Formats: sequence, C-alpha cells, structure tokens
Amino acid sequence: MKLTILGCHSATPRTNTNPTSQVLEIKNHMFLIDCGEGTQVELRRNKIKFSRIKHIFISHLHGDHYFGLVGLVSTFRLLTRETELHIYGPKGLKEVITLQLKLSDSWTNYPLIFHELTSKDSELIYEDNKVEVHTIPLHHRVYTNGFLFKEKENERKLDINAVLNANINMAYYRKLKQGADVENDDGIIIKNEMVTKDPSPSQSYAFCSDTVYDENIVPLIKNTTVLYHESTFLDKNEDLCERTKHSTARQAAIIAKKANVDALILGHFSTRYNGYEEFRSEAKEEFDNVLLAEDGKTFEF
Amino acid sequence: MKLTILGCHSATPRTNTNPTSQVLEIKNHMFLIDCGEGTQVELRRNKIKFSRIKHIFISHLHGDHYFGLVGLVSTFRLLTRETELHIYGPKGLKEVITLQLKLSDSWTNYPLIFHELTSKDSELIYEDNKVEVHTIPLHHRVYTNGFLFKEKENERKLDINAVLNANINMAYYRKLKQGADVENDDGIIIKNEMVTKDPSPSQSYAFCSDTVYDENIVPLIKNTTVLYHESTFLDKNEDLCERTKHSTARQAAIIAKKANVDALILGHFSTRYNGYEEFRSEAKEEFDNVLLAEDGKTFEF
Repeated sequence: MKLTILGCHSATPRTNTNPTSQVLEIKNHMFLIDCGEGTQVELRRNKIKFSRIKHIFISHLHGDHYFGLVGLVSTFRLLTRETELHIYGPKGLKEVITLQLKLSDSWTNYPLIFHELTSKDSELIYEDNKVEVHTIPLHHRVYTNGFLFKEKENERKLDINAVLNANINMAYYRKLKQGADVENDDGIIIKNEMVTKDPSPSQSYAFCSDTVYDENIVPLIKNTTVLYHESTFLDKNEDLCERTKHSTARQAAIIAKKANVDALILGHFSTRYNGYEEFRSEAKEEFDNVLLAEDGKTFEF
Repeated sequence: MKLTILGCHSATPRTNTNPTSQVLEIKNHMFLIDCGEGTQVELRRNKIKFSRIKHIFISHLHGDHYFGLVGLVSTFRLLTRETELHIYGPKGLKEVITLQLKLSDSWTNYPLIFHELTSKDSELIYEDNKVEVHTIPLHHRVYTNGFLFKEKENERKLDINAVLNANINMAYYRKLKQGADVENDDGIIIKNEMVTKDPSPSQSYAFCSDTVYDENIVPLIKNTTVLYHESTFLDKNEDLCERTKHSTARQAAIIAKKANVDALILGHFSTRYNGYEEFRSEAKEEFDNVLLAEDGKTFEF
C-alpha cells in the first residue's frame, strides 16, 4: 500500500503549498482522492501515469477539494483516453462537470461515470475481488464523506514442503489457499492448517477530511492500518474548530487512539502556521505513531 | 502600459508551462485577461496584488482560458475582499461560477458582477475617463472574443515658459490642457497652440486568442500599439489550423502587418514544440517587430 500526497494544505493553492489531493496505490489500483486546483500538474510532477487512474473519490464540494477535477477530466480527453473513468462524490458534482463540458462544446471521448453520494450512512461504493471502498460520513459545513479503502482478506499461504510431503495433487492448491481441507492421492483427508500458513494481514486506509472532531466515525475505522485525519488547527486555535467544522492535531490523535489504528497521518494544515512540527508534538501527547503529510511525500506501508 | 504574461501555452497546464492568463496594467488599472487553471498561484508568483484586480476578461469557455476563475473568485472571498469584481465573458460563465458557489454553500461577501457577452459585433464593454475596452469578435470553435484596451486621448502638455510669458491665470490651465484658447490677464486671446505641446500618444493593446486567421479583425485593431495574437502552430502544422481554429506564427504576423501595429507578441504555443524561436523567425518573414510571450515575462511599452 503506497500513498502519495499531492497536496495537504487547506483553503487556497499557493506557490509552495497545494490544496488536498492524494493517490492511494492498493492492490494494483491507483485511487485518486480529492482533486484541488493544480492536481493534474502535481500528478505530472510525481510521475503518476494518468491512464492508471480509473476511480476518483471527492470528499465534498469545497473548492480546495475538487476545483482541479474539471481540468483533469478535460486533459484526459485531450490525451485521447478511452478507458472508463468513475467519479464518486456528492450530488451536484455531475451537474457542475457536465455543464463545463457542455459550455466548451467538448464531451469526453471516454465513458465518464458519476456515482453521486447522498447517504448519511456508511455505504459500500466500490468492490472487486481484491478491495472494497466504503464511505465514512463526516461532519463538516457541507455534505462530506471520508473514504475507507480495505484490502479483502488475503489467501492462506502454502507451506510448500508440507504440501509435497502430504502427497497432495496440484489441482487442490487453489482450495488449500482458500482454507479448505483436501483429500490427498492416497485418499487421506489433509487438514488445511497442517499444510498452510496464515495469510499476510490485509491492510486498510481511511481518509477523513474535512471534519470536525466526531467520535461517530470510530467504529467505522476501527483497527484501520493507516488513518489520514485532517488537523487544520493547533490547540491555540481550537476555538475555530466548531465554527469552521475542522479539527486540531490533538483531536485527530484522540480519534486515532480510540480507533486503535496503526499509524496516523496529519494533513489539511491551515496556512496560518509557518511550520508543522507542532502538529506532530501536540498529537503525540495522545497517540504515538504520528506522521506528517507533505506535498510530494510518499508513504509505504 | 505594462503586460505580465502569467501563462501563454495551449491546452493543459504542465509542470513548466501555464495555460493562458495575463495582466495588463494601463492607466492605473490592473486588467486580468483570461484565467487558466493555476492563475491565482501565478499572480502570487509575480507579486501582483489580488486587491488591484477589479475587472476580469474571459475570451471563451475552453478550460485553458478560464478553469482558474472559480478558484480565484473563491480565494477573493477567503481574503475577505469587499471591492466589486466585474467579470466579462461569454454567456454561461455566470451559471458555471454561481453553481459552484452554491454547491459549496459559500457566496461571495463582495459584489460579483457578470457582464455576459453574446454579440457577434464589436462592442464597447468598459469605459471610464481614461480607458475604453472593446470586444474583438474572433473565429474559434466556440463563441470567442478578443479585447481591445485603448487609452483615451491624453491631455495637451503646457509649455510652462510660454504660459508664464503669456500672462495667463492659473485658473485657465485646465482649459489649455483640454485644447481651448483662453483670454490672458491683459484681455488678449491666446491661441492654444502658442502655449501647449502635443499630448503623449495614447497607447492601445489588442488581445486576440484563440482564433483562426481572420482578416475581419484588421479594421478593429488598426494602428494598435501592441497586438498579442495567438500562434499555436508553425508552418509545418498549418493543416491543423482550420480544423482546430488556430493560427500559425506567420498568419499572426500577416495580421500584424495588415493592421499596421507597432509590435506583435506571439503566444498560445502548442506544447508539441520544444522551443519557440522558430515562431519568431517564421513571423519575422512577414513582420519585423516580433516578440515572444513567456510565462512570467513582463513587457513595458
């Protein structure tokens, strides 16, 4: 699982900071999460192939999370893309993108499929044989969802020496990986746990931005491998959280602790601060494994 | 008259090239012309104060000319702007900007005034006591206008020694500057041309992008000081001009020559080319004073 931060700053793009966008590489997918102005340039800067992006997830319709989307959709067209593009985001997104395509008299030459979200409950919005994506309803000034990306349980691993010794036909290897007991060439039933090992643990990633501190999300992200939680402010500006529906670094860390995640990545920093180390130190008072997002930074898990 | 090129490349923003946007400083105005994605960052990079921009002119609704506008409008709001903002552009622009504001539940706290254009004839769209702005109907794939910015005729200059010798009361200086004859303190009529000099010549700037080669614009831009004319292609790709409704460098230069302008600036280069010197050399075969636009470059006239 590899996460590339294209932008992790709030409000407006600047010469040295980008608004929210990130790419999650998981089970051979490249999921683009949020798409602030300038995202297509950051994709190029980070050498991410446009053609590998097939699913885009938009948390909410504030500009710093999606003003780069229409440009990316248009650029895909200019690059003569033919592959389907699926966009998941709040109701209204389809209207705003298609209106702009209509005004420019240039429809896409690839299938552009919108999955508009309106539910206030968590939903399964994407699934294949390797991953699932669920929404995480968040509490912000407008309708907002975070997204939980979960690898499905991996297959059991063959203990190849044990398998050979047990005289099992190769035709049964698939069943073994799926956890079944099998009959060997001598007609003896071989218990699965005798010839296989536990699978490598499945990983998961929860993206939660923008949101006020909200313990309702804890059950949804329980035991997640990595949690990205916004931390727009430091303790000294906590008074701004309720009005703007944002969180502090400490609040993000409390959520991480309650959800028992392995690692917390902080981001969506307000540009009022000069450095971000204080975000880490305030969060570490509540939760140990705190990482800081940074434009252009890659995390591998 | 000072022109700052924020972006002068066609189609898509890239790590080293920006789509169309420029700022014309004329008679204390800062006119923003077109606003491709990333324009607000380029304004910051070029240290142009956001508060000085009160009028934005959008040529047409292709993304490389206006996808940065909604972000700029939103950033003005976040910066608690109170001054009026006037936006001139094709019909449809108001709908697309206000839809995005509505979806983000964040109206502007400053007056945002749209002047939607639909005429196929040249129109006077802005006027004060120092400048006029006229549309230049262009011929592109969608409804498009160029813009002609004209200083009004400057006042005559006082020949101060002659004025003093002629014994003229200071109260008449204003009338002299406006070209009138006046009576001096001895009751004698003083002919204006005896005590004043010709005004400094008025300057003008014509922005023409995007457009196919079109001689119909020549009368509208006749004797303009500076013409910015798109030149997306070189001679060798002239065949693409008719289909895409763009021009070559040579065609831009022929327009400059026919319109008898002082200087021609070429821009809106296709990213298919590596360098741009060939644009200059091909254009110079038709017209002498050819300049090349470049992101971040400033021209003073």
